[in-house]
Amino acid sequence: MIQKLLIANRGEIALRIVRACRELGIKTLAVYSEPDEQSLHVQLADEAICIGPAPSTESYLKSDRILSAAEIADVDAIHPGYGFLSENAEFAEQCETCNIKFVGPRSESIRLMGDKAMAKEVARKAKAPVIPGSDGVISDEKEALKLAQKIGFPVIIKAVAGGGGKGMRLAHNAPAFAREFHSARIEAEKAFGNGDVYVEKFIEDPRHIEIQLLGDEHGKIIHLGERDCSVQRRYQKLVEEAPSPFVNDALRQKMGKAAIRIAEACGYYGAGTIEFLVDKHGDFYFIEMNTRIQVEHGVTEEVTGIDLVKRQLLIAGGEHTELDQKDIKFTRHAIECRINAEDPSRNFIPCPGEIGLYYPPGGHGVRVDSHIYGGYVVPPYYDSMVSKLITYAFTREMAIDRMYRALSEYLIRGIKTSIPFCAAVMQDPVFRAGSVTTGYIPDFMDRAPKDLFLKS
Amino acid sequence: MIQKLLIANRGEIALRIVRACRELGIKTLAVYSEPDEQSLHVQLADEAICIGPAPSTESYLKSDRILSAAEIADVDAIHPGYGFLSENAEFAEQCETCNIKFVGPRSESIRLMGDKAMAKEVARKAKAPVIPGSDGVISDEKEALKLAQKIGFPVIIKAVAGGGGKGMRLAHNAPAFAREFHSARIEAEKAFGNGDVYVEKFIEDPRHIEIQLLGDEHGKIIHLGERDCSVQRRYQKLVEEAPSPFVNDALRQKMGKAAIRIAEACGYYGAGTIEFLVDKHGDFYFIEMNTRIQVEHGVTEEVTGIDLVKRQLLIAGGEHTELDQKDIKFTRHAIECRINAEDPSRNFIPCPGEIGLYYPPGGHGVRVDSHIYGGYVVPPYYDSMVSKLITYAFTREMAIDRMYRALSEYLIRGIKTSIPFCAAVMQDPVFRAGSVTTGYIPDFMDRAPKDLFLKS
Repeated sequence: MIQKLLIANRGEIALRIVRACRELGIKTLAVYSEPDEQSLHVQLADEAICIGPAPSTESYLKSDRILSAAEIADVDAIHPGYGFLSENAEFAEQCETCNIKFVGPRSESIRLMGDKAMAKEVARKAKAPVIPGSDGVISDEKEALKLAQKIGFPVIIKAVAGGGGKGMRLAHNAPAFAREFHSARIEAEKAFGNGDVYVEKFIEDPRHIEIQLLGDEHGKIIHLGERDCSVQRRYQKLVEEAPSPFVNDALRQKMGKAAIRIAEACGYYGAGTIEFLVDKHGDFYFIEMNTRIQVEHGVTEEVTGIDLVKRQLLIAGGEHTELDQKDIKFTRHAIECRINAEDPSRNFIPCPGEIGLYYPPGGHGVRVDSHIYGGYVVPPYYDSMVSKLITYAFTREMAIDRMYRALSEYLIRGIKTSIPFCAAVMQDPVFRAGSVTTGYIPDFMDRAPKDLFLKS
Repeated sequence: MIQKLLIANRGEIALRIVRACRELGIKTLAVYSEPDEQSLHVQLADEAICIGPAPSTESYLKSDRILSAAEIADVDAIHPGYGFLSENAEFAEQCETCNIKFVGPRSESIRLMGDKAMAKEVARKAKAPVIPGSDGVISDEKEALKLAQKIGFPVIIKAVAGGGGKGMRLAHNAPAFAREFHSARIEAEKAFGNGDVYVEKFIEDPRHIEIQLLGDEHGKIIHLGERDCSVQRRYQKLVEEAPSPFVNDALRQKMGKAAIRIAEACGYYGAGTIEFLVDKHGDFYFIEMNTRIQVEHGVTEEVTGIDLVKRQLLIAGGEHTELDQKDIKFTRHAIECRINAEDPSRNFIPCPGEIGLYYPPGGHGVRVDSHIYGGYVVPPYYDSMVSKLITYAFTREMAIDRMYRALSEYLIRGIKTSIPFCAAVMQDPVFRAGSVTTGYIPDFMDRAPKDLFLKS
């Protein structure tokens, strides 16, 4: 069992970890940057050490300073939270070298699954469906067309060096393919100085659905069902829920088993998530693995009753988990809204500042995970998320009604937030019907009256 | 379905009712006393009407003013909460006369169960165990001794006009009985000018365990298991939990069935509670029925997932409940601590005042029901309870650890509260062992180091 833990993170996840430690009787050490001195996790941890100024590169990403703090305070484990060093295989390795338990999988698992091509190869070997495609650079146009015809249209042509949509072209048939293949290569060459492209099946209107895994260090891995994270804005998840309104029990078992096979194939332990795209036929495709706790882990906790962060700590302490797959029951529906400090009228730019009156919602079926309080100053240096609001109930409809109620009583004065935007989503008939794909938010913003989500 | 509801209460329960209404789409009217103008329930209700000054006799107990407000605002129902007019049969009757739905049972049920002797008679007829005794005045000493021997020692002799322990004597055997019977009568005569006494079996070290009932207006009644409310200070419940660490499934079913029979015998509908004393052998005795929602209803909600206040509103709207006894599953363990504004170093006297910094606990398995916030002034006129903190988990031990964690991060600056006292109880080995009877608190206060619970 871990005796004393360093929390190598900030904000709500640092507080989340302090809470789990307090319930388990584990002593905590907070490390913090200068602007985070007044943070709740710093106040609630047993000890705290400042590790440098903002930005993160000078503090939360400085592995040497964090390891020094660990040594000074004589901790026996480090929890990296999410973001920052959580998926940095080198940091995990340094911890292993220093004989400090890294709360997460072994460094080789992080390294393997952090490489997109290798991760895809692991999934393929584990007989989990991956997106069919060229699996690397393809230069010959005829060969590319043959491949496109084999995997079936539509296909997407993507620049190897790409990003931000540049060098990315969609083709719905063979004539279009020749044209778009050519254009993509030219555009990629212009944009990145590298004309290499690869070809992949284009998944139309997919849902983003992920499977939560939990494995101990002794080879037992179970899944805790799925989360539907299709409501995204610019690839940032905004609303997450469990179970998915699209997934039935047969599909859940199929996806769960595929996820477990992938984790077994990379010798995984700890909490982890396999992300899939799911098309309208219920065919699913592995996209990546997150080898850490996720922001949205709370919806799984409310649906299953299992405390994932406590489980991470117990697993890292060497526990043989007593949980079996058959013990995992999905007894509720849970929804999470991420509350960001952002200004919807200015294209959702982050909007830090001092919190005035603060009143979080309460009552039955409402969970708040937040590090802010009245008088707290949201610093401008970090992610804009200031709170996670989760509601749960027996049915999806009741959970949505409860979320709308909770959002409407959540008072955060002094800064602009995404609360009104989330409230507008909760009232949207398309969202309520559960017919939500990754294209939902752009569509919603086209449809919805502007004043509905320009409030803040 | 109710369209618009008047909430004839204040504080956390008024807020609780606003929340249920918002989730159901019912419009709300708050009525409030002058010192409650800044209350959260007033701010969150759709409309609000001031019904007079403090104390309650000038506002929350003025049924005519409440009914006038109902008429002015054109509501179709009134929720009385707990306390105030909630068990006032006359008020329920006035509502019925005005054709305003009273959210609770019919007035006759309130009247019948509000009379201790009649309620006991109802229970007896329903074949629910009642405390054996003389069932009224007994004057002849020989006859009384015969009865005492029949019901079995120890017995308690109580003044009919009694209260505050005066004229109350315990007898463990026949010789003592003669002596104590005589003394009780003389003491009662002196204290109340009335020497009449009655005799009852004395339940040694009982637990206070109550069964939550839910019945619709169409004759269906189910129970939602028990709550153990043995942790009491001067007959005030302080900590409640569900399930009881003492009750096994067989006893639960037995008590549940007895409770349902009592409710059926008085034509009950709505939410209601049957209170029992339970002795160390598992024998239980009816003591009274509460014909309203109770302060501690939340622990049942967290254990079963059923929203009792919503159910009250749906039942009052005429709903045929779809819930069957077999649907009621107890999937968690939940504990509630009542957070009172009180000063433990001054014998727990109420301690109102202005709230400074306020930070309620959050995270997994934590529920807060509170009407206070930073800057709110707790008025001196009402009950000292300012918050209900509930934690839940799979096991009792985890729920207690979580409660201790939540209490330790709950910040209420500016007033003294019972938070440290509750935290001391959570750490007490006797409480943790679950061996708690109604004598627990006096015993705890004798045993525990004074500084543990004199903090505030």
